[in-house]
Amino acid sequence: MVPHLVPRQLVWLCRRQVACARGASVQHRTWAGVSGAPSLLSPWRATVTSPLVCRSSSSTPPSAPKVVLTQERYPVTRLPFSVVSEDDLAAFERIVPGRVITDPEVLEASNVDWLRTVRGCSKVLLRPRTSQEVAHILRYCHERNLAVNPQGGNTGMVGGSVPVFDEIILSTALMNEVISFHSVSGTLVCQAGCVLEELSRYVEERGFVMPLDLGAKGSCHIGGNVATNAGGLRFLRYGSLHGTVLGLEVVLADGTVLNCLSSLRKDNTGYDLKQLFIGSEGTLGVITAVSIQCPPKPRAVNVAFLGCPGFAEVLQTFTTCKGLLGEILSAYEFMDAECMWLVTRHLRLASPVQESPFYVLIETSGSRAGHDAEKLSDFLDQVLSSGLVTDGTVATDQMKLKALWALRERISEALSRDGYVYKYDLSLPTERLYDLVPDLRARLGSRAKHVVGYGHLGDGNLHLNVTSEAFSPSLLDALEPYVYEWTARQRGSVSAEHGLGFKKRGVLGYSKPPEALRLMQQLKALLDPKGILNPYKTLPAQA
Amino acid sequence: MVPHLVPRQLVWLCRRQVACARGASVQHRTWAGVSGAPSLLSPWRATVTSPLVCRSSSSTPPSAPKVVLTQERYPVTRLPFSVVSEDDLAAFERIVPGRVITDPEVLEASNVDWLRTVRGCSKVLLRPRTSQEVAHILRYCHERNLAVNPQGGNTGMVGGSVPVFDEIILSTALMNEVISFHSVSGTLVCQAGCVLEELSRYVEERGFVMPLDLGAKGSCHIGGNVATNAGGLRFLRYGSLHGTVLGLEVVLADGTVLNCLSSLRKDNTGYDLKQLFIGSEGTLGVITAVSIQCPPKPRAVNVAFLGCPGFAEVLQTFTTCKGLLGEILSAYEFMDAECMWLVTRHLRLASPVQESPFYVLIETSGSRAGHDAEKLSDFLDQVLSSGLVTDGTVATDQMKLKALWALRERISEALSRDGYVYKYDLSLPTERLYDLVPDLRARLGSRAKHVVGYGHLGDGNLHLNVTSEAFSPSLLDALEPYVYEWTARQRGSVSAEHGLGFKKRGVLGYSKPPEALRLMQQLKALLDPKGILNPYKTLPAQA
Repeated sequence: MVPHLVPRQLVWLCRRQVACARGASVQHRTWAGVSGAPSLLSPWRATVTSPLVCRSSSSTPPSAPKVVLTQERYPVTRLPFSVVSEDDLAAFERIVPGRVITDPEVLEASNVDWLRTVRGCSKVLLRPRTSQEVAHILRYCHERNLAVNPQGGNTGMVGGSVPVFDEIILSTALMNEVISFHSVSGTLVCQAGCVLEELSRYVEERGFVMPLDLGAKGSCHIGGNVATNAGGLRFLRYGSLHGTVLGLEVVLADGTVLNCLSSLRKDNTGYDLKQLFIGSEGTLGVITAVSIQCPPKPRAVNVAFLGCPGFAEVLQTFTTCKGLLGEILSAYEFMDAECMWLVTRHLRLASPVQESPFYVLIETSGSRAGHDAEKLSDFLDQVLSSGLVTDGTVATDQMKLKALWALRERISEALSRDGYVYKYDLSLPTERLYDLVPDLRARLGSRAKHVVGYGHLGDGNLHLNVTSEAFSPSLLDALEPYVYEWTARQRGSVSAEHGLGFKKRGVLGYSKPPEALRLMQQLKALLDPKGILNPYKTLPAQA
Repeated sequence: MVPHLVPRQLVWLCRRQVACARGASVQHRTWAGVSGAPSLLSPWRATVTSPLVCRSSSSTPPSAPKVVLTQERYPVTRLPFSVVSEDDLAAFERIVPGRVITDPEVLEASNVDWLRTVRGCSKVLLRPRTSQEVAHILRYCHERNLAVNPQGGNTGMVGGSVPVFDEIILSTALMNEVISFHSVSGTLVCQAGCVLEELSRYVEERGFVMPLDLGAKGSCHIGGNVATNAGGLRFLRYGSLHGTVLGLEVVLADGTVLNCLSSLRKDNTGYDLKQLFIGSEGTLGVITAVSIQCPPKPRAVNVAFLGCPGFAEVLQTFTTCKGLLGEILSAYEFMDAECMWLVTRHLRLASPVQESPFYVLIETSGSRAGHDAEKLSDFLDQVLSSGLVTDGTVATDQMKLKALWALRERISEALSRDGYVYKYDLSLPTERLYDLVPDLRARLGSRAKHVVGYGHLGDGNLHLNVTSEAFSPSLLDALEPYVYEWTARQRGSVSAEHGLGFKKRGVLGYSKPPEALRLMQQLKALLDPKGILNPYKTLPAQA
C-alpha cells in the first residue's frame, strides 16, 4: 500500500456537526474522537477506525443533530415524478427479491450524505446484483416515471449521491465482483460496486496498482469514482480517468444496456461513448461495470518535505523537479505558512523544517530505490544550493512518510478546529495558483480569521479555505460570488475535482459558457428524456 | 528529436500505385525511387525527401494512374445536399477573401487521399484563418444545406479526410498559430492547423515533448490528430488523447462556437464535452483549437532489439520489462520471423541478432542516462539468463537507434514489395494478440505468399498483413469477414488506431453493439441534424 494514504482517512472521525447556509461551500465541522493530539511520528494512527462508518445511522451518536431535509434548506421544487406505490414495491420485489429495503433506519444512512449537509426522504432502496437487474429496474421506473438516485459508496462532497426528495435509491453495493484481470496487460474489469480499496488490494497482490487513489478509498465504489471523474492522489502520475478507463457498461434511463466494456487500450471504431458517462454523476446513465488500465506497482517511494521562501520559488522548484525527477515524480503538493501554523497549533504536529512562507511535499515512486534516491538527492542539492528551497527533510521509511503526508493531509482537520470554514476547490493556471489568497487577505481584512491556500500544485488545484469564529453572512457576501468571478476571469474551474452534484450545480456557469450548458442540456434530454436519472444534480435548475 | 521517427517517414516515397477492390483494406502499393536498397547503418537516409509531398499533384509523376472517383468505385449515393453555386462562391469570398480556391490543379491534392485510394470531386476549398471565419462558413453552409469536408494534413488511412462527392473542403492549413505555452505546466494551446512536427519542435525547445508522435508528423495537423484520436509512437508512455487533451474549441454544424478550450488539468464542472469530438472524425464539429498537456522531454533514450523463441516468451518478456524498466519504458514493439525475412530480403537490411521466431524492440526514455542504462542492463541479464530472450543488441547513439527502429518501421514498405497486400489494424487482448496469424496461415495455405504479424504489443495493437502475387478475390473472400468475425469474438477492435473514415465505416458493427451504433446516430442527429459535416464518414450508411 502506498504509505501516505492512511492519514487522510484518519482525519474523518465520526460525529460531525455541520451547519450550512447559503450554498454548499459553507460548512462548519467539529471533530470529536481525536483525544490527545498526536505528535509527529507517534503511533496514534493505528487506533483510529475507518472514516466513513459515521455515515451509517448506527454510528452517528444519538446526540448528533438531525440533518435538515434538503427540500427545507434549499429553494428546490420537486419535479412531477410519480410517487412509489405498494404496486411498485411489489414489482421491485419481483425484480430483486429480498433486496428491496424500506426500513427507515437503514434508509437513513443512504438518504444523508457523509458530510451531513444534505438529506433526502427516499422510501425505498434497491440492491441489484447484476446489470440485468439494473436494466429491469430502470425500464420499470422509466415507464412509471419514477425518479432514481444511483448511489455508490456515498462519499461525494457535493450532495450528488443522495436523493433530494423521494427518489428511489439504486445502490451498487451488491455489484462487487471482479470480472477479470489480465496479468500481462494489467487490465481490470469489475462490477461498479467494487470498493476502491479492495480493488487496490486485489491488483497490488498481482503487481499492479489502481491508477487512482482517494482518502475515501475504504468506502467509495469504482462506479462512483468513474461517475464523478474522481481525481485523487495519483492524478499527477497516471492522469485522468478519461485516459485510464478503457470501457464501461452503462444502463441508460430506459433500461437499455450499453455495453462499451472494452478491455482494449486502443479502439478507434466510432465515437468514444464511454467518455460521456465519466463525470456525468449518474445523470446520463447508471454505470454497472468498469474496465480500467492498472499501471505496474512502484517498488520504491520517497517523500521530501521542503521549505520555500516564496511562491515563485515553489513554481521554480516544480519546474526543476519535473526536469530532474522526471518519470518518478508522483506528487507535488504545496501549503502556505498559515496552513503549517494551523496544523502545528490545532493538531500539535511538529514541523520537520524551519519556518518558511511556503512548504512543498514531493513524492517519488519508481522501480528502483537506489536510482530514485540518487535523483532525489541531486534535485535537492540543486534547489538548496540555488536558494529555491531553504530547508528540507526526506523520508523513505513508511512511518516517516506517513508523518510527512499528515502535515499536508490533515490541514482540512486543522481548519475545522479553527472555526467556521468557507471551502473552495479551484482549478487555476499554475502560475496564478496562489494569487487569490493574498488578494482575499487584503479584501477580507480582520473579518477573516485565516485565509489559507494549499493543494495539488502539480495538477493546478488550489484548496482555498477561509475561517472565521462563526458563520458570518457578511463574510460570505464578501467571498461569493467574488471567488467564483475571480476564478472565471482566470478561465479556472470552480470545481476542480469534487464535481457539481446538487450543491454546486448553480455555479457551473462560472466555468462553462452558455453554449456548453445548452449542449449539456441537450445531451441530458437525448439520453434521459423524462429526466428520471439523478434529478436536481449536475445541470443548473431550469429558469 | 526522438531519433526513431525519421525512418518511418522515409518509407513513404513518392509514386505509389494503388489498386483497390471490395473495401478499403485491400491495397497494392509499389514503390519507386528507392534506388539501391540501403544496408543497415548506411547514410542513405539523408538523401530521401519527405514522404507526404507525393500527395500534391505537382509531385505525382505524370505517369501515375489517376485515382478512380470514390463514387465510381464504391456503392455510395450522394445525399440531397445543395450544389455550390456562383452566389455561394461570392459569399465565401466575402467571408474568407482571397482564400476561396477553385483551381482544379490545386483542388486535386485535396480531393485525393495520400494513399491514393479514394477521390472526391469538390469544386471549392476554403482556407479560414480564425475560428470566427469557420463559424461564418458553417453557419452559411448550414443554412444553404451545403456539405462540408473538414481537412487537416490529409494524412489519414481510411479516407476520412477527403470529400466523397462534391463536399466543400474546409482546410485548417492557415490556422497554424500557437496561442500560448505555459513553461511551468507544459500546457500548449494552439490553433487546429498547426503541424505536429512544428509543435514538437516548439515545445522541445522549451524542454517538453508532444504527448503524441506519428510517422506523418511532418504533414498532419494537431486538429486532425485529435479529430481522429491518433495513437502513434508515444501511446504506451503518455496514453490516449482522451487523457492528454485538456480542452478544445469546436465549431458546431450550425456555426455555434463551443469554447471548451480549458488549459486546466482538472475541471469537474459538468459533462466533459470535448471528449465527444476526440475521434469523431469531423462528423460532429470542426475542431479549431486544441489545448494539450506536454510531458517533460526525456534526457536519455535507449533501444534494445531482441530475439525471442516464441510468442509466450514475447509476452513474458513484456511482463518482466514492465517490472524492471517500469517508468522508463516507452515502447514495446514486436515482429515475427517472416517480417524479418521480408525486411532483410526486400530492403536488404541486416538483422542485428540471430534468427529467431520473434523479435522485440524495446525503447526506454528517461531523465538520467546512467540509471536507464543500468535498469536496461539488469533487465537484459534477467531475460537472457532465463531464456526468454536468446539474443539481443542495444543502441544508445542516434544512428544505431534509427537503424534498429528501421527494422520495425519499414516492415510496411517490405510488405508492399512482396506483392499485393491485405492490411488489417486490429486491437486484441494482449495474450491472444498473435493467435490469428498461425490460424490464418493454416486457413489460407498456399493461397497466401506471406501472413505476418507485428505491431505495438504494449498497446495490444496487431498489424496483420497478408501478401499474394496479385489481387485475388478468392483470397479476399477467405479473409473477410473471417478476420473481422475472429476479432469480434475476442471482443477486439477492427480499427485500433486508424479510425473508420469512409473506408471502414461498414465494419463498425464488428466492434460495437447495436445500442452503441444507435447512440452514435442519435448524437450525430443532435449535433448535426442536417448531416452536413463530413458526410459518408464514421457512421455506417443508413439501411
